[in-house]
Order: sequence, then C-alpha cells, then structure tokens
Amino acid sequence: MEKVKDFRWKKGISVNELVESLGNVGFQSSEMKKAVDVIVKMKKDGAKIFFTYTSNMVTSGLRGFFAQLIELGMVDVVVTTVGGIEEDIMKAEGEKFIIGRFSADDIELYEKGVNRVGNLFIRNESYLKFEDTIGKMLLELYKKKPRWTPSELIHELGKRLDDRNSILYQASKNNVPIFCPGITDGSFGFHLFMLQQKHPDFVIDVVQDFRNILFCTSHDDKKGLVSLGGSISKHHAILACLLNGGLDYAVYLTTAHASSGSMSGATTEEAKSWGKVKDDSDVSTVIGDVTFTFPLIMVKALETLEKDGMLK
Amino acid sequence: MEKVKDFRWKKGISVNELVESLGNVGFQSSEMKKAVDVIVKMKKDGAKIFFTYTSNMVTSGLRGFFAQLIELGMVDVVVTTVGGIEEDIMKAEGEKFIIGRFSADDIELYEKGVNRVGNLFIRNESYLKFEDTIGKMLLELYKKKPRWTPSELIHELGKRLDDRNSILYQASKNNVPIFCPGITDGSFGFHLFMLQQKHPDFVIDVVQDFRNILFCTSHDDKKGLVSLGGSISKHHAILACLLNGGLDYAVYLTTAHASSGSMSGATTEEAKSWGKVKDDSDVSTVIGDVTFTFPLIMVKALETLEKDGMLK
Amino acid sequence: MEKVKDFRWKKGISVNELVESLGNVGFQSSEMKKAVDVIVKMKKDGAKIFFTYTSNMVTSGLRGFFAQLIELGMVDVVVTTVGGIEEDIMKAEGEKFIIGRFSADDIELYEKGVNRVGNLFIRNESYLKFEDTIGKMLLELYKKKPRWTPSELIHELGKRLDDRNSILYQASKNNVPIFCPGITDGSFGFHLFMLQQKHPDFVIDVVQDFRNILFCTSHDDKKGLVSLGGSISKHHAILACLLNGGLDYAVYLTTAHASSGSMSGATTEEAKSWGKVKDDSDVSTVIGDVTFTFPLIMVKALETLEKDGMLK
Amino acid sequence: MEKVKDFRWKKGISVNELVESLGNVGFQSSEMKKAVDVIVKMKKDGAKIFFTYTSNMVTSGLRGFFAQLIELGMVDVVVTTVGGIEEDIMKAEGEKFIIGRFSADDIELYEKGVNRVGNLFIRNESYLKFEDTIGKMLLELYKKKPRWTPSELIHELGKRLDDRNSILYQASKNNVPIFCPGITDGSFGFHLFMLQQKHPDFVIDVVQDFRNILFCTSHDDKKGLVSLGGSISKHHAILACLLNGGLDYAVYLTTAHASSGSMSGATTEEAKSWGKVKDDSDVSTVIGDVTFTFPLIMVKALETLEKDGMLK
Repeated sequence: MEKVKDFRWKKGISVNELVESLGNVGFQSSEMKKAVDVIVKMKKDGAKIFFTYTSNMVTSGLRGFFAQLIELGMVDVVVTTVGGIEEDIMKAEGEKFIIGRFSADDIELYEKGVNRVGNLFIRNESYLKFEDTIGKMLLELYKKKPRWTPSELIHELGKRLDDRNSILYQASKNNVPIFCPGITDGSFGFHLFMLQQKHPDFVIDVVQDFRNILFCTSHDDKKGLVSLGGSISKHHAILACLLNGGLDYAVYLTTAHASSGSMSGATTEEAKSWGKVKDDSDVSTVIGDVTFTFPLIMVKALETLEKDGMLK
Repeated sequence: MEKVKDFRWKKGISVNELVESLGNVGFQSSEMKKAVDVIVKMKKDGAKIFFTYTSNMVTSGLRGFFAQLIELGMVDVVVTTVGGIEEDIMKAEGEKFIIGRFSADDIELYEKGVNRVGNLFIRNESYLKFEDTIGKMLLELYKKKPRWTPSELIHELGKRLDDRNSILYQASKNNVPIFCPGITDGSFGFHLFMLQQKHPDFVIDVVQDFRNILFCTSHDDKKGLVSLGGSISKHHAILACLLNGGLDYAVYLTTAHASSGSMSGATTEEAKSWGKVKDDSDVSTVIGDVTFTFPLIMVKALETLEKDGMLK
Repeated sequence: MEKVKDFRWKKGISVNELVESLGNVGFQSSEMKKAVDVIVKMKKDGAKIFFTYTSNMVTSGLRGFFAQLIELGMVDVVVTTVGGIEEDIMKAEGEKFIIGRFSADDIELYEKGVNRVGNLFIRNESYLKFEDTIGKMLLELYKKKPRWTPSELIHELGKRLDDRNSILYQASKNNVPIFCPGITDGSFGFHLFMLQQKHPDFVIDVVQDFRNILFCTSHDDKKGLVSLGGSISKHHAILACLLNGGLDYAVYLTTAHASSGSMSGATTEEAKSWGKVKDDSDVSTVIGDVTFTFPLIMVKALETLEKDGMLK
Repeated sequence: MEKVKDFRWKKGISVNELVESLGNVGFQSSEMKKAVDVIVKMKKDGAKIFFTYTSNMVTSGLRGFFAQLIELGMVDVVVTTVGGIEEDIMKAEGEKFIIGRFSADDIELYEKGVNRVGNLFIRNESYLKFEDTIGKMLLELYKKKPRWTPSELIHELGKRLDDRNSILYQASKNNVPIFCPGITDGSFGFHLFMLQQKHPDFVIDVVQDFRNILFCTSHDDKKGLVSLGGSISKHHAILACLLNGGLDYAVYLTTAHASSGSMSGATTEEAKSWGKVKDDSDVSTVIGDVTFTFPLIMVKALETLEKDGMLK
C-alpha cells in the first residue's frame, strides 16, 4: 500500500513532478493522481475517449486547452452544452472576456451592459456581434439542405472558423464530432428559431444525432470518459456508452457532491451500479474547481503520454 | 430591520408556524422565509410562473407534490430534463422505487440488477416495463403525424396516463406545457431513435418548441421563476424569460455554490447582471437539498395563498 | 425495504406529519427521518446524550431552542466554542442581533460599527456591553478562588443569568455541564487575560476539565451524540466518548463534505473505523444548514418522545 | 482590466508558469493567482505572517511542506489544533500513514485496527507508540516546572525531535511560536490529564498563552494571515490580529462556503466588516481542497520570492 509522503518544494519544480508528489499527499490530491493514471491507462488501451464540459468552462481560459487536447488526439467524441458552442465562436471571432470579481455590484454591471458568469464578465457587444456572425452562417447552411443534426451543423461551423485555440476549429479539422443534445438552449436556439420562422422546412434533427452518438462507438470498443462538471453533457456521454455496453474507464471532475442524487454530483462509485464502469483502478472522482484540477491532471497525463509517443 | 428571535418548539407545531419562526432564525432559514415571500408575491401579482426541476427529484417523492402544484394552479410553465419525463411515466404505470443507502455496495447492486441514484434504488425491470409502454405510445403518435415538438409529445403522453400524482397527467389536464429541450438525453431518446430507424420521416422539432416557450409568455407578462437544482432546465427557463424582457421574481433552490461559475450554482444576485431579475425583495437563493427546502418553502406559501383564496 | 412515496400537501400539515412523509421522499430527507429515529432511540435507551454546536448557531435563533432542549431533559452534556458562550450571555443581557444580507457591503458595515456573520449583523455596542458584564462577573468569581475549569466557570455564569431562552441559564438550572475546551478563543479570552494580568495566580485549568468530561460518562453508560457543525466541539465530544468505549448512537448535521478529510465533514460512516459508532441503524449524517435541518429533526423527535412521556 | 486568456500546455511546463497562466483562466484559478499576489505582497511588505491549519493536513503529506515554509522564513506565528501537534510527533518518530480509499469498509478497518481520516489510514499502533513517547516527554517537562503554556510546551517538544520535515522541529529551531488554544482536544489531552492525576499542581495555562499570542505582534506591525481550513486555529489567528488593529493581508483557503455563517466558510469579504482586512487587493479566498490549492499557490509565491532573495 502507498504511504503518505511529505511534500517539499524545490526551485523550478515542474507540474509533472508536483502532481507525482501530490499522489502521496492524500485527500483530493491522491484522487487527482489516480485520475491521471486512469487517463493514461485509457489512452494506452486504445479506448475511445469521450470528453464532456459545460459552457462556463469555455467562458474560462480552459477553452484553448480543450482545443489543444483535440489537436493532440486525446479526444474522440465531445459532448457539451450550447453555450460552449456559442462562446467558442465568439472567441474565435476575436471577442475578449474579462476577469472580474465574484462580489461585483450586479445592478451596476447591468447598467454598463456587462453580464457576469462567476468572476468573469461578458459585454453585451460580444453577443451582438455573435448574432451577426451566426445568422449568416446558418442561412448559408440552410441553403445546402433543410434538415441538420446538431453535430453536422457544429462541424460546418468549425470549418468556417480560423483559430487554433477554437474547439470547433480543431474538432472540424481533426474529425472529432461534437454532440450538443440541448442545441436550442442558448442564443443559438433563438437564431435557429428565426431561421425556421422564415423557412418552415428548416429542422434540427436531434433524434438522428442520438443515432450518431450511438454509432460513433460500439460494444467492441474500449470506452473512456473524462467528464468536467455535470449537466446534460455528462449524462449524455454516460448514456451513449451505457447503451454500448458501458464504460471501461471514467474520470469525473466536479464541484458537486453526491448527497442530493444529482447528475453533477454522481460519483464513479454510483456509476458501478449502472454497469457503467467496472473496476476500482479504472475510475476516479475529483472534487474541486476544474479550472485548476483539470490542468493539473491533464498536463501530468500529457507529459507521460508524450514520453511514450502516444500524442499526435 | 428584522431581529433574530429565539425559536422554541411548542407541541403540535405546524409547518406554517415553523417556517414563520425560521424567518427570524437566520442563515439559510431566513433566506427560506424570503423565498416564501417571493413566491407569494409572484402569485399575487399574477405573474406567469415558470417551474423547473431535474430528473432526480422525480426519482424522489417530490414528484407527487409537483403534480399537486400544477393541480393547484401554482405553475404555468414547466421545464425539465427527460429523465423527469421517463420516471414520471414509470411511476404512473405503477413502478415503485426503493429507499436505499448512499453507501451501498455498487458492484453488488449491479449484480442484482439494481441502479442507484444517491440513496434511491431503481430495478432494471422498471426500465424494461417502461420500454414496452413508451414504444407503443410513440408509434401511436407517429401515426397521427410525423413531426412533433417535445412539448406536444409530452402533452399527449400525459393524456394517456391516469394518476393524480403524475406530473404529466396533471399538466395535460390543466393545460400546463412541459418543455424538455434535451428530449433525447435518456432512454426516451433511444425509443425516438428506434422509431426513426423504421420511419425516417419521423422528426422531433426542438426549434419549434423554442418558439413555443418564447410565445407562452410575453414582454407584457409579469414573470416568475421557481427553479430547483441546476442544469438545462434552469437555464432554459431563464433564457426564455430573458428574451421576453427578464424575470420579475426568482427563487433558486440549489446545493451548488457560485464559486465555479456553473449554472447550477449561479445565484439570483448574478442574475441581476443579466437583467434577469430586478430587485432584491423579489429574489431569493436557498442553499440546501430540495427534498426538504422545497416542501418547507412551498407548504408555507400554499398555506398563505390558500387563506387568500389564490389556489385553484 | 421502504418505498419512495409521493408527498402531497394537506392544509394545516404539522411538522410531525411533514417529517414523517419526508422519510419516504429520499435523498437528504430520508437521512433526516433516520436522524429522528436515532435520536428517539438513544433517548429511549437511556443513553447519555452529548450535544455540540458552534457559536454561529447561537448567533442565530436556534439558541432558544437549544435552551429548551436542556429544559426538556434532552441533553446531558454540552460541548461548544467560546463564541457560543459569549453570545448567549449577550442575548441574556438583552442584546438583539439583526437579520441582514449575505451580500451586504462590508466596508460600509464596518464604518457603521456593524459586524457580519453570514447574513446576521452584530453591532459593536453589543460587544462593549458584554465587556462590562463579563469583566465584573469574572472578578467576582476570582475572589472565590483563583483556579477554575471552564465548565465550572460557565456553570457560575449561567447562575447569574435570568432568561429562559439562555443556554447557560438552563444548563446551570438543570445541572447540565457545558464544556468549552477552547475557552480563550474569543473576547472572553481577552477578559481572562486582563484578569490574569492583575492577578497572576488566576488560572484556567483546562486539563482538569478534560478529566471532568471523561468522568461525566463511563464505559457502562450508553452514549449518544447529536453534533451540529464541526470544529473542536464535535471532535471533543467524540473523543470523550471514544475514551469511554465509543458511541452507541450518533447524529451528525453538517454542511461540510468528507472529501477533504476534515472533522466538519467527517461522516458517521468514517466514525465506525474509529470504533466510535457501531451499527448502521444507530447513525445518521444529514447534509444541510442546521437552521432548518435541526428544527425539523428535533421537533419530530420531541413530538414522538412527548407522546411517550419521555420529556421532562 | 485583465482578459481571459486561453491556456495551452507546453512540454515540461513548470508550476510557476502554470499558475501564472491560470491567473487568466478565471473562476477559482484567478482567485488562486490573486492569493499568490497577496502572499508575495505581505512578505515583501515585511508583515508578520500568521499561518493556520488543521490536523487533517498534518495527516496528509502537506506536513513536510509546512515545515519547509518555517525553514524558509515564510511563517512568523503558527496556530493549529492539537491533532496537528500529535501527528507531527508521530511522523517525526517514524510512523507511516497510508493512502487508502474514501469508500473503504469502515467496520472491516475497525476490526483490523485501522482508523480512517478521509482516504488516509492510521494504524492503532501509531497511537500506542505516540503514547509512550509523549508520556515520557511530559513527565520530564513537568520536572522542570509545574505550569506551562501550550506554546512553551510545544516549543520544548520540538527541541526533542530530529526530523527536518517536522513542523515542531523547524518551529523550535527557527523560534516560530506554535499556538494551540484547544490543547486538550486530542490524545495529548489524555496524557496531560494522566500527568495531572499524579501531580495535581501540574497546570496548563491557556490564559497566559492568549497573552503570548497578543504580544507576539503589535498595532504597529503589518500583519498577514494565510489560513488553511477553518476551526479554532483560523478564528484564533484572526482574533489575535483583530485585537492588534486588524489584518493588512489575508488569504483563506477552504472547502466551506459562506452560506451557513460558519467560521470555516467565512470569507475575506465578511472579514472586512470586522475591520479585519482593509482592501480588496490585499485579500483572497480560494475554494478547494488545500492538498492541491496550497501547493500551487505557495510554490508560485516561493518561486517569486526566491528570485527576489526574500527567502531564508
């Protein structure tokens, strides 16, 4: 059995060394190291890797890292919420979000046309510019054909962007499908509705996309999941894998706890009862804000995999 | 300004009296009393009341209470996740869920064909029976027409149930629309896909339903929101109201905190920056498991509104 | 096995009926009902009941309820933090605390001489008046003898108060010892220090009080614990019982989670490994703000015990 | 205003670079970077630095890092709980703790003589050996004089250890006082009691130690606080500084939230109302498990301070 070992700083310490040491520190740090091991294991085992996140993480600076992971071949299937599509496009078009304060005066922000997401600020202008962009793109796509699945649509949008830090850009370039089962739940939905008002034959086929996510893996594939946060994106990836025989590897990073029976707080333990995951050495749940847990875990996994030539 | 007052038990104390007292106890109890006041105010003001919840709450015994609220005229629009549709139907068909333990052995449960959601257990048989039911219902509806919005479909399903504790039954009976923007994210999605495999013209029109949720209220309506938990259901209701000029009243009950910028943890404070809610006396965020915060708050609100003849 | 049952409101519902129903609702509500059962069981079994809380709960209106529990014979031993002593005295002397807001402007409050504890406000004057009171009381006690244990001191202070909602008053009247192992950690500590400056032979004997808490129970006693929040008070009660053979019954109410290995978040599960608690039917951990979880649980327990003539 | 910037991994990235980048990622990562800035600022400003932690962190591998911080001159005053004293001694005497599992079977552990703290295991033998050691040390100290303050006692214990990873060893060597206001709340308390049984004139003078913590700083000193977790240790440091005019800098790292008015969850915002901290650029609260938040923050601060020759 592993022992607790005293951590000590040494000058210039790398993330690789830090996370290695944290494995022997205990509490969430050991779980973090276990998450690294599970990710390395799923990659080496050739598992199909599902990756899920919520839109607030795209609001944050994790977005470029997500794009890079696709570029490096660490992700085979993405599931996210529509806000994560919108803001990726906004940023690809040059919009800048601001580091603000959790305790900002919200009435004052409103009067200045600033919207708050935790301690991040998004100006109204950013949305207005997005509306122009997306309206044009959607009309262009409608002209090709009237019936689209969300993943097809997102693939086409990605092809129209030019930003190596864009998740959509990298996904399109690397043929990684992005699923978004709740495609109307954002200002994107409003633009879809506007288009349908003018062109009633325009339709988004979410049922077909459920077929697509089911068929992008199979019972025979090894399957792994790296899920950040909760929501429909986490649940959808679990569901798709479950219908294909269950997950072989799972890493859940979340701030939610299991006490209320929510999907966000559901642990990899609970997942075992669903036949989703099978063995203790193949799962890890880490509690904490993904803006630091995910870079720590994934950087360590990348350093390890890079050494073994497992990255694109 | 209100003072802190010492709470004392008296024999036979009612929920009405307890929550009244808790208003002067402080911390989340005062926020809870404030939530009661906001709900009473939104109802008396004739606001259109949006009500959102996640599927785990339908797994729990809150389901009958949600149905009752619709019956009593406390809810004008419902937004939920698809699991909340599925389990309502399962229960309406007679399935029973079990009170288990958070610390149950998940491998053992799996072997027994039992699925765990927090401390609640659902047997595999319950899902199998649901599959029979839903498959037949969907085929019958397809025969009427090939293109359905989720809310239309759910309305029809509700008409086929006969259980006063069913949310769908009461919603259909009382003409309360239930929106479910992520309709494919459940075993329901699997059945939609199966139907589409056989009948490729079958399509679920989520874009049309976005129009429907937008048009079920207007800029002129007063609008209130009672949101339980987070997820796409909370966000969708906020979005629909925002596009109609913003919420006048909002009560958020959640276990999540604001520290990670997630939708689940987003507070009614933050909502002000989005122009969603306008005044401090009209909003309340209560942190805690909804299985007890919601009955406490809503029972108190019902007792008050009943006295004033405001219930159906 | 218990089934999930749909909760429905009926007009005038009592807390007794509500909590009974919540037992079949699931998630934290079922744990809550289990906590009721454990408390009733420990009382009926004649267990020595340890009760712990932290000072913020005395800031809140739970204080009067705690006093009432002592009056009713529900508590045999109290362990708390020194803030819980100070504020009980302040309130017994007539000070009023204010229900404020979590999001109040703290700089503004400071300038007004108002101190914030969550959403509760305490004015500087309240502390100033306390200083007068306590300084005199301590000098008077010193004149009796120079060496005091915290529990002796607190017992004497309680005898000098006259307020049935005072925890100290009821504890002194009912001969319930109040232990406070961190007696100097508050403005109380400052007054002890002032007295010692003038009278160097004045000493607080905390070691003797450790003997006292050990000797107020024995290996032969059945022992139960109702612990609210975390901190030194929770730990101290567990420790005293552990050294006497371990707890037979334990109810922990807390907002903290187990993920960081803290005492606040330590569950009754973990306690089993320490030999502290022995059986699953005799323990319960409920996650949530005690300002509502505790009244719900304890009112239900009181109603049950009162019916069986188990209250004083 | 700072902008959100996309984070990208580059091979061999150092902790220094990572945390720098995280400052522009948002949510808790930006708060983390702010915490670094506050710590660097307090050190450069020559502030007296108070450092507090709870015993579970000494159970973890952070212990060696805490010792190193004292060695490097980053800490002027320590406040902790008594478990943090005991386990430091146990480890200095060669005891090893084990990395276990949160979901271990607690009954089984108990039968094997293993105690669980989160996912860390401590064997009964470790306690038994500690008892031998501490009993002898205390008797030896009693023979010198009968009246001791906790900080004096701890200083003497530290002189008897020989382990550079020991907090007590480094504190004694570097003349950093360790305060422990709840000195009896652990097995240490039991040994103090045993000694007092034999030698009734033996007394621990906690009041004198309150004087000591007050006098180890002054109104004229700049004062900074780095507080990990909550409990009496956090509160005691804040109190001592408050009585000396308030803190100039404060960093709180915790997993608790402000919603229940607890000390663990109290933020640096709330502290402003108490006159404890004065300006926004001088405070930071980071939510997350300290086993990773603290190494990230403090390593970055050390790298910066080392470059400027500010470390011992």
